[in-house]
Amino acid sequence: MPNASLWTLSNAQIAVEAVAITAFAVSGLLEAARKRLDAVGVCVVAGLAAFGGGTLRDILLDRRPFFWVAHAAWVWALLALAIAAMLFLRARHLDPTERAMQWPDALGLGLFTASGAQIALDAALPPIVAVLMGMVTAVFGGVLRDIVCNEIPSAFRDHRPYAVCSFAGGWVLVLAHALAAPEWLALTAAAATAALLRALALYTGYTLPAWQPAGRTRG
Amino acid sequence: MPNASLWTLSNAQIAVEAVAITAFAVSGLLEAARKRLDAVGVCVVAGLAAFGGGTLRDILLDRRPFFWVAHAAWVWALLALAIAAMLFLRARHLDPTERAMQWPDALGLGLFTASGAQIALDAALPPIVAVLMGMVTAVFGGVLRDIVCNEIPSAFRDHRPYAVCSFAGGWVLVLAHALAAPEWLALTAAAATAALLRALALYTGYTLPAWQPAGRTRG
Amino acid sequence: MPNASLWTLSNAQIAVEAVAITAFAVSGLLEAARKRLDAVGVCVVAGLAAFGGGTLRDILLDRRPFFWVAHAAWVWALLALAIAAMLFLRARHLDPTERAMQWPDALGLGLFTASGAQIALDAALPPIVAVLMGMVTAVFGGVLRDIVCNEIPSAFRDHRPYAVCSFAGGWVLVLAHALAAPEWLALTAAAATAALLRALALYTGYTLPAWQPAGRTRG
Repeated sequence: MPNASLWTLSNAQIAVEAVAITAFAVSGLLEAARKRLDAVGVCVVAGLAAFGGGTLRDILLDRRPFFWVAHAAWVWALLALAIAAMLFLRARHLDPTERAMQWPDALGLGLFTASGAQIALDAALPPIVAVLMGMVTAVFGGVLRDIVCNEIPSAFRDHRPYAVCSFAGGWVLVLAHALAAPEWLALTAAAATAALLRALALYTGYTLPAWQPAGRTRG
Repeated sequence: MPNASLWTLSNAQIAVEAVAITAFAVSGLLEAARKRLDAVGVCVVAGLAAFGGGTLRDILLDRRPFFWVAHAAWVWALLALAIAAMLFLRARHLDPTERAMQWPDALGLGLFTASGAQIALDAALPPIVAVLMGMVTAVFGGVLRDIVCNEIPSAFRDHRPYAVCSFAGGWVLVLAHALAAPEWLALTAAAATAALLRALALYTGYTLPAWQPAGRTRG
Repeated sequence: MPNASLWTLSNAQIAVEAVAITAFAVSGLLEAARKRLDAVGVCVVAGLAAFGGGTLRDILLDRRPFFWVAHAAWVWALLALAIAAMLFLRARHLDPTERAMQWPDALGLGLFTASGAQIALDAALPPIVAVLMGMVTAVFGGVLRDIVCNEIPSAFRDHRPYAVCSFAGGWVLVLAHALAAPEWLALTAAAATAALLRALALYTGYTLPAWQPAGRTRG
């Protein structure tokens, strides 16, 4: 595990990570609540949203153990979060919670982008593949969440920049390594780029150019 | 393959296994029939329902060969089953078949839970991860079946206990091993717990507490 | 990588391969356009359609690196194709493009079937599993494309032979190897069988026998 340093974090870093994972898990809880899933579905969808992206990246890179296997306490924390949500979350909380979670979610986007792309670079993969792995880590938890909930993934149809911010952050990481920057600086710059671009997009309401031709759907 | 003993079974055990796999495959056949899939779809969905959970577990645990690769005769049996169903199954058979299959399906839930969790314990994974792997083995065949058929997985929205029975059975296995019970006893107790809880839930019509807040769906 | 010979191709073979991958990617572009996905969705769905089948096969066979990791230039080519499509493709182009792509798509079906089944045979897998791996390579890119786009995979409900042609081509490969045919001949015969059967099915409009019982869908 050449990148163990990523997870031997200071307390401040652990706090940031906890915020990011919680934001991703809550996005799964909210989607599950909207779809009226039962308790099992709530836990599974929250877990997919939080850990699905990193797990898919590790399957693609053939890395073991997964984060949630090496740190099984996170599975318990996720179960506790899901049970607390089922006890206390009401329909009128869903939209305010989602809006409040946008900012820690942007933080998670940055953090997962940087760690995922770094892991791929450590494995000596080509730059474009490393950038894709950062995107998979950051975005595909939400994609799996939406597929299980029988929705077209919001990352692919939302038109507000999300994966694109991760893409840009990944290239910052690649560039910083090409310039021989120290790893902590490269990771911080990549995570900050992705998170701040996402925050900027949320703040300004910018949307990607629309795809013109879709005038109908297949029957 | 440290757990080869699981599959070097007596004739009675092979019969139980065949009943369980067949029940899972039939759940795929019925779903494919309801969705009017063609012959290819029927075979694929039946195969996913029967072998998808174990295959996903083996991908997560990085184990090879898969059950259906090591025992390729099962692939032929599945094709024969699907073709027989297409020749003989009629619309009026769908609901009675599904009801008749609930009991062998409960048996499969127990059997797959016990074998999946045991494989994870043999790989020295933490107890909560072993329990999850039992659930993946028993439940995710049906999840993949429903995703391919463009449904929210019934295991996540049905409110009748299914994955929860598998969860309980997994903990029985962990507990039995912690008490140094012999492996055959641990496996039997775990499988029986999951299967009997499921049968009890079907018999009593018990449902999990509903998730209150879902008053609307996202547009 | 025992089958590196598959990818050390002459220029003619590279051209055939490029046509096939492009046809698969365009099927993803068209589906994404119909579903009004944004730029990220268009690129991801095109990539899944082109490389998803081979990637899933490699995950199942535990092979690395993936084709698109070893040949990262293809990722750039795919991005360029997706951007060009978004600039130039209009709604009135969708149906004509899809019809024009049926023939290179049949070529891709044959090519991916032959290479996928050959890789499985090289790994000493049983014949039926090798045939399934050819089908996974050729068909599951489209399956993943349709799942992400929230459709029942067209390969499973279209009734026009598609996976069945791949199945037949895979058996030609197995048979040719059993007869000790040289590898180039076996590959060519398998690819030609699958592609020509598909072209014949398109030309004649033949459909698989319908599955009778489906008189209703589950609520």
